[in-house]
Amino acid sequence: MPHFVTHLEGAIDGARLDPNVAHTLHKDRPIWVRYDLDAVRRAVTPADLQSRPPTLWRYRELLPPKDDASIVSLGEGMTTILRCPRLGQAIGLDNLWIKDESQLPTGSFKSRGQTVAISMCKQFGVKRVAIPTAGNAGGAMAAYAARAGMEAYVFMPADTPVINQFEAALCGAKVFLVDGLINDCGKIVRAGTAAMQWFDISTLKEPYRIEGKKTMGLELAEQSGWTLPDVILYPTGGGTGLVGMWKAFAELRELGWLKSDKLPRMVSVQSDGCAPIVRAFESGSRFANLFPNAKTIASGLRVPVAVGDFIILDAIRESGGTAIAVEDGKITEWMQLACGAEGIAVCPESAACVGAAIKLKESGWIRPDEKVLLFNCGAAQKYPHTLKLDLPRIADPAKVDWDWVSRA
Amino acid sequence: MPHFVTHLEGAIDGARLDPNVAHTLHKDRPIWVRYDLDAVRRAVTPADLQSRPPTLWRYRELLPPKDDASIVSLGEGMTTILRCPRLGQAIGLDNLWIKDESQLPTGSFKSRGQTVAISMCKQFGVKRVAIPTAGNAGGAMAAYAARAGMEAYVFMPADTPVINQFEAALCGAKVFLVDGLINDCGKIVRAGTAAMQWFDISTLKEPYRIEGKKTMGLELAEQSGWTLPDVILYPTGGGTGLVGMWKAFAELRELGWLKSDKLPRMVSVQSDGCAPIVRAFESGSRFANLFPNAKTIASGLRVPVAVGDFIILDAIRESGGTAIAVEDGKITEWMQLACGAEGIAVCPESAACVGAAIKLKESGWIRPDEKVLLFNCGAAQKYPHTLKLDLPRIADPAKVDWDWVSRA
Ligand SMILES: Cc1ncc(COP(=O)(O)O)c(C=O)c1O
Ligand SMILES: Cc1ncc(COP(=O)(O)O)c(C=O)c1O
Repeated sequence: MPHFVTHLEGAIDGARLDPNVAHTLHKDRPIWVRYDLDAVRRAVTPADLQSRPPTLWRYRELLPPKDDASIVSLGEGMTTILRCPRLGQAIGLDNLWIKDESQLPTGSFKSRGQTVAISMCKQFGVKRVAIPTAGNAGGAMAAYAARAGMEAYVFMPADTPVINQFEAALCGAKVFLVDGLINDCGKIVRAGTAAMQWFDISTLKEPYRIEGKKTMGLELAEQSGWTLPDVILYPTGGGTGLVGMWKAFAELRELGWLKSDKLPRMVSVQSDGCAPIVRAFESGSRFANLFPNAKTIASGLRVPVAVGDFIILDAIRESGGTAIAVEDGKITEWMQLACGAEGIAVCPESAACVGAAIKLKESGWIRPDEKVLLFNCGAAQKYPHTLKLDLPRIADPAKVDWDWVSRA
Repeated sequence: MPHFVTHLEGAIDGARLDPNVAHTLHKDRPIWVRYDLDAVRRAVTPADLQSRPPTLWRYRELLPPKDDASIVSLGEGMTTILRCPRLGQAIGLDNLWIKDESQLPTGSFKSRGQTVAISMCKQFGVKRVAIPTAGNAGGAMAAYAARAGMEAYVFMPADTPVINQFEAALCGAKVFLVDGLINDCGKIVRAGTAAMQWFDISTLKEPYRIEGKKTMGLELAEQSGWTLPDVILYPTGGGTGLVGMWKAFAELRELGWLKSDKLPRMVSVQSDGCAPIVRAFESGSRFANLFPNAKTIASGLRVPVAVGDFIILDAIRESGGTAIAVEDGKITEWMQLACGAEGIAVCPESAACVGAAIKLKESGWIRPDEKVLLFNCGAAQKYPHTLKLDLPRIADPAKVDWDWVSRA
């Protein structure tokens, strides 16, 4: 298996870094992985891909492990893209699609980042990993660490959804509940590096999770016959999803695989309870300030400060996109709307994108005939606390009042 | 699209039934779908399949809808098969595999049955569907009904896991909690048919869910290069999974697609808290008695009486397999063992199969070098109540005692 990584690159200053050693941040900012795309173009064609197994590892030439032996996989990738006529009609969009990332190991798109990051940890001989998490990333990391036989430490806010606590603990990770937010958890992981000798897999603090997230963009292009939608709506926490896709599109364009050079307008969606990127976008700034008192039902979006703020904002602006905050109090309503219309298990984070689509359609920023794609980043099943259930009860199965049933 | 269904067949008496009308039971027993397999053999080859999209609908010629327009899909199928060296080593099996059905819409294998059953409801013009459920089937049915725009009624025991209640309600189904077990819920659905004019999608009470489940066997064969494992372990509730696979193998053998005529030994796994099939198997009977006071942490296995008992028992015996009950009190331990060893989100029902594998290996019924495959039927994430979490807490992120962290 030839290998196409040429070097790593500091995102803040373009510095060239050695790809053969483990890195975290460079000048306190993220690091890009760079490939010899001319060599990739010679080595593989889009047609070659089709005969490979349907997982994200089919994009092998655009992924960083040196040897296949390092790959730690749970069979992730190639999530379905579903047309949504019923939801589209409800919100006035004729050409609406959802890419359903809930159908991945651990039920969220976080698996994409973790399969690549943990594979690179294996390559570098890492035996112990640690992560601060809003929830799903910790669950995914624990699963891949278990698969790799590594020791895992997970730090999450004390009020993280219980299923995220459970899934990480079930895989044998050491899970700690922290009185604070994800950035407080991040400080703990950083502070413990010397004493605990773990590798820090925080969002964008190592170069490889984003390479995994990139495959959302690669898949989307391949599954759509190497075309892309007009608009992509993506819920933004730490930002790897949006930035990863933007990197994918740039690489595909350079490879010459896309049928058109026109790229999607990227929409970063946040909750009005935690919208640091939206604030920075609106103020014209390249960097974001910490969002005070962050609070949202969409737990994956509760990221008050992102180390990759400038690369998120750069991507949005380069794409001609926008950043938008939606009403936190309406998120469960949009979840019910989307799940009820299409049967797709839309998580709160992605329900925020439904709200954003409605707002942007109303303002005219999205035209009704544009091809709009939103990502369902995780399984709604991980968020049972978002609905207050008060279900009707049948005490005697032999005596059911059918009129009452009809009225339920 | 040519169509290969020739007729339906009563499982109890071989009666030939009209495939062009909607059926429930025949003489109170299940109905098979029969195909013109000679015509299928002429129409499609294994090689043709490879170029089709990676969903269960690639087996189109072996599925019942007349027109593609009836198909109601959420992009299900082609779940990964993962080798499990670490778990295998822990339990003394050198060649152990898990097929991970948690990576399906709604997080369980129940989606396979529902995509086909709801598609057939659409074909027959059904507008309202109802189901009794141990949990996951109701969630899946609600999702597919939403996708199809049908009205859905779901009846579940009052103590069904809350996530199953939630997922069905979120998709807009009318969910009722019943003081009783799944068979009581089944009686309600049957009793309401006249008054409510719904179609009853109970396990094996209509002919098509099993056709969807059959695809587990088709996929398994295709993904393994048209070979099959020596032993398959399957958790048995209503039995569609096991029976569906056995039907798949028979069809594949008749098609001549399998490299060997030797079929797997099928193991039906139940909990000692609800083991009607195991009791019947052990007593040599073809039919099972109602299991009194059914109680198990593996909620999907809490099915005290199965209308398809004789076809389950026939399949096990024909295959040279067995039926085995495992200790309910050890199920969470096996979940932790499997999840911790492999990072696969093994549900309690499938953890019972881990227990069964241990027992059958110890008794010598499974040899250490045999190829053993167990199904992970659902996502562990749907069962957070199975572990009592008592996670360590960090009150002040700025003051962490690393010795205490190391000892956690
Ligand atoms: C379901 C879900 N959606 C969206 C996000 C935000 O993703 P990112 O951190 O890549 O911006 C998260 C992060 O936790 C998440 O779990
Ligand atoms: C996770 C899980 N495993 C196994 C079963 C039993 O499957 P079957 O009814 O096909 O025997 C169920 C049924 O509810 C289930 O939900």
